[in-house]
Amino acid sequence: MLQTIQWTGEAVRLLDQTRLPLETTYVDIVDERQMWDAIKRLVVRGAPAIGVAAAFGVYLGVRGSGDGSRGAFGRRLSEVCDYLATSRPTAVNLFWAIERIRRCASEFLAALPASEADVSAVRVRILQEAVAMLEEDTQTCRAIGEAGVALFEALPRGPQGDISVLTHCNAGGLCSVEYGTALAPIYTGAERGLRFHVFADETRPLLQGSRITAYELQRNGVPVTVICDNMAASVMAHGKVAAVIVGADRIAANGDVANKIGTLGVAILARHFGIPFYVAAPMSTVDFKLSSGDGIPIEQRDPAEVTAAWGRATAPPGVAVHNPAFDVTPAALVTAIITERGVLTAPYREALTHARRRLSARTFRW
Amino acid sequence: MLQTIQWTGEAVRLLDQTRLPLETTYVDIVDERQMWDAIKRLVVRGAPAIGVAAAFGVYLGVRGSGDGSRGAFGRRLSEVCDYLATSRPTAVNLFWAIERIRRCASEFLAALPASEADVSAVRVRILQEAVAMLEEDTQTCRAIGEAGVALFEALPRGPQGDISVLTHCNAGGLCSVEYGTALAPIYTGAERGLRFHVFADETRPLLQGSRITAYELQRNGVPVTVICDNMAASVMAHGKVAAVIVGADRIAANGDVANKIGTLGVAILARHFGIPFYVAAPMSTVDFKLSSGDGIPIEQRDPAEVTAAWGRATAPPGVAVHNPAFDVTPAALVTAIITERGVLTAPYREALTHARRRLSARTFRW
Repeated sequence: MLQTIQWTGEAVRLLDQTRLPLETTYVDIVDERQMWDAIKRLVVRGAPAIGVAAAFGVYLGVRGSGDGSRGAFGRRLSEVCDYLATSRPTAVNLFWAIERIRRCASEFLAALPASEADVSAVRVRILQEAVAMLEEDTQTCRAIGEAGVALFEALPRGPQGDISVLTHCNAGGLCSVEYGTALAPIYTGAERGLRFHVFADETRPLLQGSRITAYELQRNGVPVTVICDNMAASVMAHGKVAAVIVGADRIAANGDVANKIGTLGVAILARHFGIPFYVAAPMSTVDFKLSSGDGIPIEQRDPAEVTAAWGRATAPPGVAVHNPAFDVTPAALVTAIITERGVLTAPYREALTHARRRLSARTFRW
Repeated sequence: MLQTIQWTGEAVRLLDQTRLPLETTYVDIVDERQMWDAIKRLVVRGAPAIGVAAAFGVYLGVRGSGDGSRGAFGRRLSEVCDYLATSRPTAVNLFWAIERIRRCASEFLAALPASEADVSAVRVRILQEAVAMLEEDTQTCRAIGEAGVALFEALPRGPQGDISVLTHCNAGGLCSVEYGTALAPIYTGAERGLRFHVFADETRPLLQGSRITAYELQRNGVPVTVICDNMAASVMAHGKVAAVIVGADRIAANGDVANKIGTLGVAILARHFGIPFYVAAPMSTVDFKLSSGDGIPIEQRDPAEVTAAWGRATAPPGVAVHNPAFDVTPAALVTAIITERGVLTAPYREALTHARRRLSARTFRW
């Protein structure tokens, strides 16, 4: 499988997702400013991957901070963490990852004997934690795949014996380190001999579906058909979709799901046609501080993404544009949330809280 | 207002809609092959405009046919009509317009005394009929505007006192000769002092919404905001849409509506959010030979429209693509059909049949 994020020992090597599908190129990120820019410009994207990238970004930001006092180091750490948290506003994994690194560093510092003047060891500890998060992400996505595959095995087959699934945006391997979230049950199922066919919504404005999902499925040998977002209703009406599966950028405590713009529409269509609508996400996507999806901040992006994508004007100059990057799907439209702790169903507030309790205290703290 | 189609005396002058919104250029069409190509390539588009353009196309195809026998002329006429009918398969106005010209010519020929060897006069009659259809289209669209404006006057106003409407694709002035169908009630309402705000779905793959609807509304002074198709659910969820209005490419006898791909999805969203969903179309759009929408042929277009629009690959090479140009919205999702004969509501089979009876026998014959 493609590796989205690698640690070279000197730099964070990111697969440049802005260049897909035509160029498979990598960029080496060496400081926190480059990482901020890479997250902002979607060189690295997808909630889980953003979290891991930001964790490494914290390390890159403090590794040159010299051997100053604990106070000076703490201030620098805070500065870097706060800065990286401004790169994108919606994906909670970003904040979760930064907080995890911040807490890990504080605990390490607190445990350091007062007589120990050298704080440079904390930098090593931060790097270790980022590397651990990268490995955990791989395991988490595999666990999501394991949890979700039973749902897909139970779905009706198409005329060719395949299971036809529609997905929106990219919550595949390229949104994480390796297996992805929404596509993890498909990869896991394929390993076990299930045959899938995926309709990939192209996902305007930035076309993560046609550029990234189609690219990775094709590369991984899963049959895929690209459609424009507005064709989803038509393929569903013709009985060509057995289930919808998407990822999530943030899930509120009640199960409301913020995900790529257009997800809400797909969920409403699935409900209309009686098709199950699954959300796959790691537990780190759940923001227990938010009671419902109403409180999720929605990133507004540059109008030029809509009016002049790919360098050519496609709308009259000066026209007003609305370009939210995400929408919120109410929990009532979600058939199940597939996590590394299993398949959760309504009522989600109770199911999510219960799943959280079962997580190890070390890895997941909110 | 912009003129989509004009007769110069020598040629049919078409506003080249493939060049919008950046260039307002015209092309002069002088023979039936050029007209076929202009319809196919969407230089001229929108069901009503295609009908008028095809009518002129028939004239262009026979005007150089010499002074042969009635039989030779009839064969040439049939050949041209059959040829033009292959340009696009879904819009019934195309076939309706060609049939109207064919019938008009037959009747003229039948009335010509057998002693009259010269059949060239029938060419003049064909041109007259095409010009009449151009003028009728203008009147029909104004009548649709008159019929629909009362529906919009009754809608709730937004915080700024405006009526917020969402439309898909372009069924504005540029789909017809002048006022359009879906936008006609808005232009008529604006003339009477109503204030509108329009959300224009960009309408992938060919972006008729952002390129054409936004262009014409901006030019005509109606506030417009461009959104990607997948943002419609989000703006509806935020209470920003009081009504949806779209055009139609073909309406079956039971009220099922074939229109630009994505219309079905918008109709389902409107139903979910309790928003009225209006279809505006001339009676010539109704295909009484089709009992339901199941029989409407759906044009499949070039995959490159989806994967390489604007000259740059946006999907991996060789990926499968599904690119239907239209979908069918069941009559049950349509709040009303606005025609030049008034506002029709369910049951549509009866309402459409009744409206047809009231049309003059001369102008509309099926």
